[in-house]
Amino acid sequence: MLAEIITIGDEILIGQIVDTNSAYIAKELNKIGISVFQITSVQDEREHILQALSEAQMRVDVVLVTGGLGPTKDDITKHTFCDYFNDTLVEDKAVLEHIELLFAKYISTPISNMNRAQAMVPSKAQVLHNAHGTAPGMWINEGGAVVISMPGVPFEMKHLMQHEVLPRLTAHFKRPHILHRTVITYGLGESAIAERIEIWEDGLPSFLKLAYLPNLGKVRLRLSAKGEDRLAMEQAIAHELEKLYPLIQDILFGTEDDMDIEEVIAKLLTKKGKSLATAESFTGGKIAETLTSIPGASAYFRGSVVCYATAIKTQVLQVPQTLVDQYSVVSAPVAEAMAMGVQKLMGADFAIATTGNAGPTKGDSPAEVGTVYIAIATPNGVFAQEFQMGNHRERIVQKSVNKAFELLQKEILKM
Amino acid sequence: MLAEIITIGDEILIGQIVDTNSAYIAKELNKIGISVFQITSVQDEREHILQALSEAQMRVDVVLVTGGLGPTKDDITKHTFCDYFNDTLVEDKAVLEHIELLFAKYISTPISNMNRAQAMVPSKAQVLHNAHGTAPGMWINEGGAVVISMPGVPFEMKHLMQHEVLPRLTAHFKRPHILHRTVITYGLGESAIAERIEIWEDGLPSFLKLAYLPNLGKVRLRLSAKGEDRLAMEQAIAHELEKLYPLIQDILFGTEDDMDIEEVIAKLLTKKGKSLATAESFTGGKIAETLTSIPGASAYFRGSVVCYATAIKTQVLQVPQTLVDQYSVVSAPVAEAMAMGVQKLMGADFAIATTGNAGPTKGDSPAEVGTVYIAIATPNGVFAQEFQMGNHRERIVQKSVNKAFELLQKEILKM
Repeated sequence: MLAEIITIGDEILIGQIVDTNSAYIAKELNKIGISVFQITSVQDEREHILQALSEAQMRVDVVLVTGGLGPTKDDITKHTFCDYFNDTLVEDKAVLEHIELLFAKYISTPISNMNRAQAMVPSKAQVLHNAHGTAPGMWINEGGAVVISMPGVPFEMKHLMQHEVLPRLTAHFKRPHILHRTVITYGLGESAIAERIEIWEDGLPSFLKLAYLPNLGKVRLRLSAKGEDRLAMEQAIAHELEKLYPLIQDILFGTEDDMDIEEVIAKLLTKKGKSLATAESFTGGKIAETLTSIPGASAYFRGSVVCYATAIKTQVLQVPQTLVDQYSVVSAPVAEAMAMGVQKLMGADFAIATTGNAGPTKGDSPAEVGTVYIAIATPNGVFAQEFQMGNHRERIVQKSVNKAFELLQKEILKM
Repeated sequence: MLAEIITIGDEILIGQIVDTNSAYIAKELNKIGISVFQITSVQDEREHILQALSEAQMRVDVVLVTGGLGPTKDDITKHTFCDYFNDTLVEDKAVLEHIELLFAKYISTPISNMNRAQAMVPSKAQVLHNAHGTAPGMWINEGGAVVISMPGVPFEMKHLMQHEVLPRLTAHFKRPHILHRTVITYGLGESAIAERIEIWEDGLPSFLKLAYLPNLGKVRLRLSAKGEDRLAMEQAIAHELEKLYPLIQDILFGTEDDMDIEEVIAKLLTKKGKSLATAESFTGGKIAETLTSIPGASAYFRGSVVCYATAIKTQVLQVPQTLVDQYSVVSAPVAEAMAMGVQKLMGADFAIATTGNAGPTKGDSPAEVGTVYIAIATPNGVFAQEFQMGNHRERIVQKSVNKAFELLQKEILKM
C-alpha cells in the first residue's frame, strides 16, 4: 500500500517557502499503514503536473496532491485535472453555499466572481468539505491510483486530512500495519553509537529496519516494521529493544515516540505539582516559547525574564553588579545568580538561566562565540555548567535549549 | 538551465523531519540563474535511488542529491553511485586526514573504522571539501547532467553550497538571469487583491509571472522574470511595480525581498537609537525570540517579561490587581498596564504587550479562545487593540506576533 505526495507551486521550487505539508501528510498516512514511496514537488505548469500525475498513478496506489487551488490565475490544478481525466468543471451548490457563508461571517470585502469560481469542481470528483477555507478538496477514483487534491494552506489541509481524507482512505483500502519505535539518546555521536551496537544491529530480523537520526546533540534510533501481524511486530520490537537498552543505558533518554524532552518536562512538573521559571539571555525567549507552545503550560510555567541587556540582569533579576564586574556577564556565577533571581522573583520551584555568546561577534564580555553557561536552580540549590556550542548562531541557541532541558530533567527526577 | 533536487532518506518520507534543505538549495540556485524544475524525495533504497537519478539526469542539467552519506549502515548513497556510474570506491587521503583532524579536535571518542570509511569516494567523483563534517561532498560529471552529492545535515550542506557547489556551478555553466521581486501587503485577502489589480495583471508582459502567497494576515505578490538581458528585465519589473503601487497603497507594507517585518523594525530602532521591551502572556516569548534570532538585537532590544502566570503580571509588571479584577486578565486595560509596566521596568522607549487566550481551552479569564489584546507603549502614550485570531493555537500566536510588529512599526514611523 503505497502513496505519493505531489506538491504543486513555484514557491517551493524557488525556495520561498519550506514544504511542511508533506511531512505532516506522510506521518498521518504512516499511522494508518500507508507508506509514502516518493514526494514530488512540481511547478504551477500544466505539462509538468500532467507528467507527474501520470508517473505517480503508475507507481503507487494513492496520489495526494496539495496546492494550486487558490482563486487567482496562477493556480491551475483544477483545470489540469480536467485535462488529465478528460473532464469538465461543474458548479457544486454545497461548496458555493459554504463560500458565501464564510464571506458573510469572516470577510469584510464583498464576495467576488473569483471566489465563486472556487465552487467549480471536475464532474468526476467527489467533493471533500474544506471547513476552514473556500477551496474544496477532491477525491477522484479514475484510471489507476486514487487521486486526492487538497489546498496547500497548512491548517486547511490538516483539517481535510483528519475529517475527510484519512477516514475515506481507511474505509477504501485494506492496509498493513506500519510501526516505528524511536529511542532518544543524548551525549554520544552517531558512529560511536553504531559501533557500540553493531553486533545487535547485525542480528536484527530482516523485517526490522534501523535508522540513525542525529540532531544537535541528540541521536534518535528508529526501529521500523511493516506487516500484517501487528502483535507479532510489536513483540519483536519490544524483544529487540530489551536487548538494546543495556548497551546504551548511559546515553538513553527515553523511548516514547514523538515525545520531545520539553513534553517530558511538562508532564513531570505537572504531575509533581512543581513550577518553573526561566531567565534567558542569548536564548532570547526560546526556552519559554518552546515550553508554552505545548498546551497546558500554565499548570507549571510561571514565566520568564528575557534579559538581553546586561542592566536587566542586575536591575530585574538582582544579579549583583560585583559578580558582573568580577567574572563578566558570561560566567557561571552570573548564570547562577540569574537562576536564583528569577526563581525568587517568580516564586518558582525550579529555574533555568542562560548566558553566553551566540555570535556572530563578541558582545559585552570577553567570552568567545559559542561559550555558554546554563544554570539550574532547584529547591535545594543552584549550579551552572559551561559548554562550547560551536560557532553557528541558530545551532548554539537550539543546542543550549536542548541541553538546558536535559540538565533540568535530571534535577527534577532527583526530587 | 534546469536543476533537480533529490533528497534521500526515509525520515522525510515517514514525516519524521521536514525537508528544509531543498528550499535553501532552490533559493541559492535561483540567485545564480538556475531554475529548480522538480524536487524529489526518495527512500534509502537502492532501486529507487537508481531510478530517480536516471529520470533526473534526463530531465535537467544538474542534479543535486542530499542525504544518505552518514557513517552508518542505513546510508547507501555512495554505494548506489558506484552502481549507477559503474565505479568503485577509493580512499581519498585528504578526506581521511580531515576526518582524523575533526576527531582529534572535537570528539572525545576514538575514531572508528566506520568514520574512516567516510573517506572512501567513487573514483569518478571530484571531492568537495566538507569543512564542518566527516562526509565529503561529490561532483560527478558523467553520462548526462552533472550530479552533485551533499550530506543532509543542514549546516554542513549550507557550507558546501557556499564554498564548493555554487562557485563550481558558476564556473561550469552559462546561465540566464532569474529575478524575483516580492511586494508585501497586510490587511486584504488574496482574491480581493486579485480583483483589484486584475486589469494590471492581465496587461503584464508574457515574460513576467505573478504569484500570490498568502500567509497569516499578509499576502506577498511575487513578480518573476527569466532571461538574458538583466537590465531590461529589471526595468520592466520596475515599470510594472510603478503601475501597481497606486492600486495597493493602502495595504502596501514594503517591497524588499526576503526582509521580514522584524528585520524592518530592527533596522528602524537601531537607526533611531531607540529601545524596545516586551511583556508576553499567550505569545510565551515568541516575540522576543523572533527579534533576538536576528544578530545585532542587543543594539535595541532590552528584554522581555514572559508572564504566563497572572501573578507575574501583577508582581513583576506592577499591573494593578484592581484592573485584573474589574476587566479580567485578558482585556485592553491589562494589556496597556503590561506594556507600561515593562516599558518602565526595562527603561525602554517602546514596549509591546500581549494577553489573550490561545486555547485549546479557556484559561484564567472569561475570554473566548482566539480573543487577544495587543498593546503598544511609546514615549507618548499607550493603546491596546482587540483581535479575533481564530481557534488554532499556533496560528493565533503567529498571527498575533505579526500583528504586534505591524502595530509597532506604524508607531515607530510616527516618531
